[in-house]
Formats: sequence, C-alpha cells, structure tokens
Amino acid sequence: MSAVDEKEALDWLAGRMPVGDDCYVLTQGGEDLLLTTDMLHRSADFPAGITDFTIGWRSVAVSLSDLAGTGGRPLAVLIAYGAPQFELDSLEEFLDGAEEVCSLVGGRIVGGDLDRHQELTITTTAIGEAERPVDRSGAEPGDLVTVTGDLGRTAAALKLFEKGEVDRANELFRFEPRIQEGLQLGEMATSMMDISDGLARSLHQISRASDVGFRVTEGKIPFAPSVEELSESPEERRELGLFTGEDFELLATVPAQYKFDLATLGVRVIGEVTAEEEVRVASGMEVIDLEDRGYVH
Amino acid sequence: MSAVDEKEALDWLAGRMPVGDDCYVLTQGGEDLLLTTDMLHRSADFPAGITDFTIGWRSVAVSLSDLAGTGGRPLAVLIAYGAPQFELDSLEEFLDGAEEVCSLVGGRIVGGDLDRHQELTITTTAIGEAERPVDRSGAEPGDLVTVTGDLGRTAAALKLFEKGEVDRANELFRFEPRIQEGLQLGEMATSMMDISDGLARSLHQISRASDVGFRVTEGKIPFAPSVEELSESPEERRELGLFTGEDFELLATVPAQYKFDLATLGVRVIGEVTAEEEVRVASGMEVIDLEDRGYVH
Repeated sequence: MSAVDEKEALDWLAGRMPVGDDCYVLTQGGEDLLLTTDMLHRSADFPAGITDFTIGWRSVAVSLSDLAGTGGRPLAVLIAYGAPQFELDSLEEFLDGAEEVCSLVGGRIVGGDLDRHQELTITTTAIGEAERPVDRSGAEPGDLVTVTGDLGRTAAALKLFEKGEVDRANELFRFEPRIQEGLQLGEMATSMMDISDGLARSLHQISRASDVGFRVTEGKIPFAPSVEELSESPEERRELGLFTGEDFELLATVPAQYKFDLATLGVRVIGEVTAEEEVRVASGMEVIDLEDRGYVH
Repeated sequence: MSAVDEKEALDWLAGRMPVGDDCYVLTQGGEDLLLTTDMLHRSADFPAGITDFTIGWRSVAVSLSDLAGTGGRPLAVLIAYGAPQFELDSLEEFLDGAEEVCSLVGGRIVGGDLDRHQELTITTTAIGEAERPVDRSGAEPGDLVTVTGDLGRTAAALKLFEKGEVDRANELFRFEPRIQEGLQLGEMATSMMDISDGLARSLHQISRASDVGFRVTEGKIPFAPSVEELSESPEERRELGLFTGEDFELLATVPAQYKFDLATLGVRVIGEVTAEEEVRVASGMEVIDLEDRGYVH
C-alpha cells in the first residue's frame, strides 16, 4: 500500500465514478442541475494576511467558478465551516464575503454545517442549472482556443501576501467567477473548464479528455498587469501566468465560425486546436512543448 | 470579540439565513429538492479502530439521514475528502462503504474533491427530492410523538471502540439511514427531524421551532440492546440513550388519527405533544424536566 499524489488519486477515481469535469450533471425533471464541491483550508489556501471577508468570498467563488466552467447559472450554495473556535465577528465577515460574491454573479447561501476543527477548513458546495452543460471532451481540431480575463492574479497575490502588501493581495484574491462569460461561451463552446491548476495543466486536461492537441501563441496569452509588474524575468512571468493557476478564468474551445462573436465577448483567442495530442506553445521564433504541470497544494 | 459555542453560533446564523432544519428546500422547476452538507473529521468523529469502510459509510449516512429527516429520497451525494495522504487501498475501502449505504437506501456518489489535509476530514453533501418536505415547525398539541428504531447505538459503539471490541463497534457505527421510514412518516408528520444530538436535544429543538411542548414516557423509549447490555446503571442507560445521540433515528410528531398507521410502520409512540413549551418525561412515579443538552463534539 503506497501513497499517491492528488493527480494519480483523481485518475484512479475517474475509473470508478463520473469525476473529471468541473461539475456533475444531474438530470432531474427534464432539467440539468450542476453539482460541485470544494474543500479549502488554512495552511494550503489562506495565506497570512487574508481577511475573513476574502476567505468567505474566495471559498464560495471557487465553487461558483466550477459552475461557470460548465456554462451554468448558480442557484444555491452550502458551506461547511470548520474552525478551532466560532467568533461571531469572524463569521459575520466571512458570510459578508460569501454573500457579496453571490450578489455579484448569482446564487444564495442557503445553509451548511459548523464543525469545531483544529484547522480552519471550508467546504463549499454549489448547485446550478445549465441549458447546455459543457464538459471537457468535445474539442475538435480547427476550433479556436479562448480564455477570459487575464492570468496570474493569484500568483501575484501570493507574492504580495508574502511582502505584507495585504490590501492589494486581498483584492486580487477576490476574483469574480466568470458566470456571465460561461453562459455566453457555453452556447458556442465544444469544451470548457475553469483554469484551476494553471493554463498549462488545463490545456493538457482538455487535450486528454477530447483527444486533441493545442498550439497556442505565448504573445497572445493575457498576463495580469500585476504579473507583469511583479515578475523579475520572462521565466518568472511564465511561471506565474501559466503554471501557478487558481485564477479561475475560463478556458474554452469554440468553432472558428464564432470568431466575431468571441471578439464581441471581449475574450482573447490564444491559439487553436490541433489533431495531435500534444500541447505546443509558440514563443518568439521557437515552438516548444508546454509541460503538464500546475499548481500543487 | 469572544468565542461562542456551536449552538450559539447556529442560533446566530439562523437569524441570517435559512438554517435550522435538516435540509434546505430548493424549489426548482416545480419540484422540491433537498440540500444538506456535513463535515466530519478524525479527532471528533472517527474513533481509533474504525475502518475506512465504516468511515465512508457513516460519512455518507449522516447526510442521507438529513434527507430522511425531511421526508426525502436521495438522488446524489458529493464527497470532499481531505487526508494527509492518499492511499488507493484506503480510498477504495472508503468508497466501498460510501457506495454500500447508497445501494441500501438510494442515491449515488457522483463526484467530489480531494484535498491534502493534515487531519482526515470528510464533507458530504446530499441532494434529494421530496413530495412533501417536513420541517420542525408544524407540531400541534395532541399529536403523537414517535421514534424509529432504537436509541443509543452510537454511544454503545463508542464504549466498544474504547474497549477494543472494534468489530462490533464498527457494525454499530454503520447505521442505516431511515429513508423508507422518513418517506412513510413524511406523509403524515406535522414535524420531523433526525436525532443527531440525542433525543433530549431533538425534543427541545422541535419544541422551540413549533412552539409546543412534549410529555414522553421513559418506559416507552426504545433503548438499543447494546445500551441495555453495556450500561452499568439506570443513570448511564439514560445518558447513553437520551443525551449522547448520533444515532440518526427519526423523531416525528403525527396527528393522533394516524395511530394505527404508526403501528403498521413499526415505529414506537413515546408520548404526546403538549401546549406548554416544556419537555417533560414521566419516569416511574415522577414527572421531570428533560434537560436541553446533547452530544458535544
């Protein structure tokens, strides 16, 4: 009996149950309901300097982002809150943050559980609905590859937390789940997901699920301004923007006929889908393989 | 800013969001969906000697029991699994237990999350449906008070774990959620819940939510055979059977006209609902107040 890493454990689980996409789709009464759950905890997910408000926001946003990645609309969120002690002021700030992100993109905190736990541990579960749920398996050669927003916010925030610039760090940590963009992309996309482990890992995940490859152009990848500002070399910029992840932007593949619709949505096209199962990035004059690695807790 | 206990925190939360019943009822497309989440963890919920199979079973059963307490039928279960390391053998046993309880009473494990966490921590979320969801607020004076099964199994199991009699302890720990009974009682009940913190606390919870009282007869309360066997005094028997809880039997109030239907279901009538908001128990020649205390993690 030997221990395996999270990725190996997930691969093994995928052989036993319908895991592998952002959400499970439960068809109930003719409607497609989306279900997703995420566990976060102090030592891995909440750096020193984070506020209770940001913890509440981010914990909920992570699950709402899974709904966005499936093209869904939020209905309700449950929160299991484990903490060494219950302080009403902390709980209030936490809930304010949790409710604020719902008021921005939809959904409602409807209940949960309290648990006295040695380490602050939050499990959020989101329930949504989708007209046309999109998973990772439908990408076709020739499709355009698109991402919302810009990449590397979380990596930049982590650097700022370390430097003690906590106000900016908290702000960057409170990302807005791409619900609207997911609904719009969902009408066109052949595959979609939220970028939780970094763009590189996400491209590989769609590559495997759809049995296709990617060719992306580094110059077209939208790095966050804070990444441009905080990275000290092109290598670090790439590390922060492509491999750190937890930015929760959306990655989608869209048939080329929708090129102009994508421009209207304000999302960037960074490359295209290819037939070979490989992920290549054009950087200046070179074309190199983009490694399959990403954020590790 | 001062820390409060779980009960005070829950009371405070109830002022802010719809907590206070076993499940949240989400009305969607004309149907009533039930949502519930629970966090369990090693130091509070999984005694030394518990098997991975029992951990999986019990983690899922706890959430299914909330569906039962609302008169619901299980549809799907999500599991967030946090552990210091991922062992495929342990995960397999855990999932076997989780799936076994679903195969007994309904539902299906459809996905979840893996999280590397210092302490084994499991959050289960169950989604169900109900024709007629029952909460805690509708009890009326004159209703009969009924419980399913027998009480004190978990208390007895904890004693057996301590004594090292782990086979019997594991077996007692793997309770069967009362889904069938909940569906049947749900057609008649004015209030219902699962007994998670012990019968005494549960009676007080319905008393407050329905603004009624209870008069129960101690001699009619069904104590588990293992409680009769393991308790060394009448006081200990009462402690194990009424105040320890985590037995996940159902407590319901049912109009007296259904007296004969209850007999057919094989559930026990232990007393009746009264108008005064107080919980009294008749024990021999005495009638005493039943304290509002229960299982504390």
